[in-house]
Amino acid sequence: MTRAFNFSAGPAAMPLEVLQQAAAEMTDWHGSGMGVMEMSHRGKEFMSIYAQAESDFRSLLQVPRHFKILFMQGGGIAENAIVPLNLSRGGVVDFVVSGSWSQKSLKEAARYCTPKVAASSQASGFKSLPAPSSWQLDDDAHYVHLCTNETIHGVECHSLPDLKALGSNAPLVIDFSSHVLSRPLDWSRVGLAFGGAQKNIGPAGVTLVVVREDLLGHALPVCPSAFDYRLVADNDSMYNTPPTYGIYMAGLTFQWIARQREGDLSGVAALEQRNIAKAQQLYHCIDHSQLYVNEVDVSCRSRMNVPFFLRGDDGQPLLDAAHPRNAAFLDGAKARGLLQLKGHKSVGGMRASLYNAIPLEGVQALVEYLRDFEKTQA
Amino acid sequence: MTRAFNFSAGPAAMPLEVLQQAAAEMTDWHGSGMGVMEMSHRGKEFMSIYAQAESDFRSLLQVPRHFKILFMQGGGIAENAIVPLNLSRGGVVDFVVSGSWSQKSLKEAARYCTPKVAASSQASGFKSLPAPSSWQLDDDAHYVHLCTNETIHGVECHSLPDLKALGSNAPLVIDFSSHVLSRPLDWSRVGLAFGGAQKNIGPAGVTLVVVREDLLGHALPVCPSAFDYRLVADNDSMYNTPPTYGIYMAGLTFQWIARQREGDLSGVAALEQRNIAKAQQLYHCIDHSQLYVNEVDVSCRSRMNVPFFLRGDDGQPLLDAAHPRNAAFLDGAKARGLLQLKGHKSVGGMRASLYNAIPLEGVQALVEYLRDFEKTQA
Repeated sequence: MTRAFNFSAGPAAMPLEVLQQAAAEMTDWHGSGMGVMEMSHRGKEFMSIYAQAESDFRSLLQVPRHFKILFMQGGGIAENAIVPLNLSRGGVVDFVVSGSWSQKSLKEAARYCTPKVAASSQASGFKSLPAPSSWQLDDDAHYVHLCTNETIHGVECHSLPDLKALGSNAPLVIDFSSHVLSRPLDWSRVGLAFGGAQKNIGPAGVTLVVVREDLLGHALPVCPSAFDYRLVADNDSMYNTPPTYGIYMAGLTFQWIARQREGDLSGVAALEQRNIAKAQQLYHCIDHSQLYVNEVDVSCRSRMNVPFFLRGDDGQPLLDAAHPRNAAFLDGAKARGLLQLKGHKSVGGMRASLYNAIPLEGVQALVEYLRDFEKTQA
Repeated sequence: MTRAFNFSAGPAAMPLEVLQQAAAEMTDWHGSGMGVMEMSHRGKEFMSIYAQAESDFRSLLQVPRHFKILFMQGGGIAENAIVPLNLSRGGVVDFVVSGSWSQKSLKEAARYCTPKVAASSQASGFKSLPAPSSWQLDDDAHYVHLCTNETIHGVECHSLPDLKALGSNAPLVIDFSSHVLSRPLDWSRVGLAFGGAQKNIGPAGVTLVVVREDLLGHALPVCPSAFDYRLVADNDSMYNTPPTYGIYMAGLTFQWIARQREGDLSGVAALEQRNIAKAQQLYHCIDHSQLYVNEVDVSCRSRMNVPFFLRGDDGQPLLDAAHPRNAAFLDGAKARGLLQLKGHKSVGGMRASLYNAIPLEGVQALVEYLRDFEKTQA
């Protein structure tokens, strides 16, 4: 098969240029006589790769100097423990529950602290985001946890809340796994941001943590050293051997992002504009069809993850993954080189993830297929 | 530079064939239309890669069915916490202290249990292994920790102890990070084995854990879910998103190992014979020189990591890394394409790591250089 359009929710499509450069450098990086995988993490070759990746990420997202950028391991699920191990001090933590991921985060945090539900959209099936004005924030909370893009439910927080204006002095912790680098970020409202790399950054196995320096140094005694942010920061992410190749791939991706252009815009701003256009095309197609449905509140629809259902003959969403119409849809998509559109098993249906590496042409091909498939079902 | 001989202690040299195959498959794996990094870990393509890697490792080391093979994240340093979190039950654990790595393991375990030093070779500068007959094993120990190859001090345990014969019923936990797959392993003497991948397996960022099933299910309440062996085992290493590309590279390495031949031997047995020959050549050269010295007891010299010092004009080992003779040695080595020979910063001197991917020709080139350099210093 030639390269397909790959709508996987993660691990996910990567820019072709990045993969090609990695392949070309696999056995000999820049004339060093060795590939990146084979370099000591303490050698000058890898140290230069690391420093460039860190600096490029800082530049792309304009991360202020008083934040540390850490490259860690374990993904978002490990961070669900590592964040409270480092920040909770065993006390109260506020959670905004807006989908499966924040639910998981809350459950795991309960091992180390006293999580409180400040707001939840569970009653409405996670089809909207609780309005910040309705959040019940605890005066004693050590931080407020918010998943700013719920990958499974397709819910995105398009504007970070101003906790100070809501009367809270707690730092905001965001799980930005599935939309990091898809848009600029207002660091004045963030205490810590974390995310697995396998959506917009690079291969699975790298976790990015961006943390305000004043939050370091308060790990609980049971926090493993390898996951103590203070130790990781003091050792430039080399307290334990870092996932060197994943960091290199992330670095190549950062360079690719910096090269992107849309009109006068470049980098993340250019990608944001492109991502808005991509999402608009797909949601427009879904909303104007009789066959497809996305029930997420328009104000918080995700630009990155678009879950949708096909309707049955009765007009209701086909929740049954084994329904012949669902199978026919996926088979037809695959035949056109449109891959990994099956929805998460916990909710069923379909999901198209439109991360940075998906070009506008990929979304156009998908929209065309959606329209053609609908005609066959009339 | 053409491909060098790379003696890094880890991340370390990988077989050229493995790197070339990875490069060739980077943008399209087996006609799937996507690279391995881009695949959902839940899709049938990656599931087949995972299953093959697991099965090949089991076959190479003849791992019995009642052991689970887990692919995790965090490396040996994270396992220093994860092992006691899962196995110690907060009680007593015996440690054999034979070098820097077992020292680190003991220190970290103290967060979760009561570590006891059953034996230590620290007083002699970690130049030998404490004889098993001298170990003071605790009747209440939940396991006995042994680092079977100390990467920094170059000390290897060539025959696993029989704890039952020593009067202990505790399972043996071995850190086999730096010699896994270099020789066969007697699983009847092992309860759990763990190791970072970045020596003989693949890229940094993958950790291999092989654990006897009856040891699962006893994690402490503060163990992060992502590192609870029971959950990891029950989810085929996919409780959190696994480091998919690293697992793929490990799988390619396992296939490469299976193809190795020495006379009638194949696989790990063939590599063991080759590794013995490689180590003998280098130690012989060192022992018969006036310039180089390795002070490790001959009975427990590592086949994988050969630390050595150059002598000064007074005949004493040159501990000062900045000494001109040390610098001249490393510069001359690099000029011949012999890379990453500098010793660990904690001990100084030199270190040649002779992992599986280093061919006999690499050791011959190193020996030739050692002899030539010695002549220049006469």
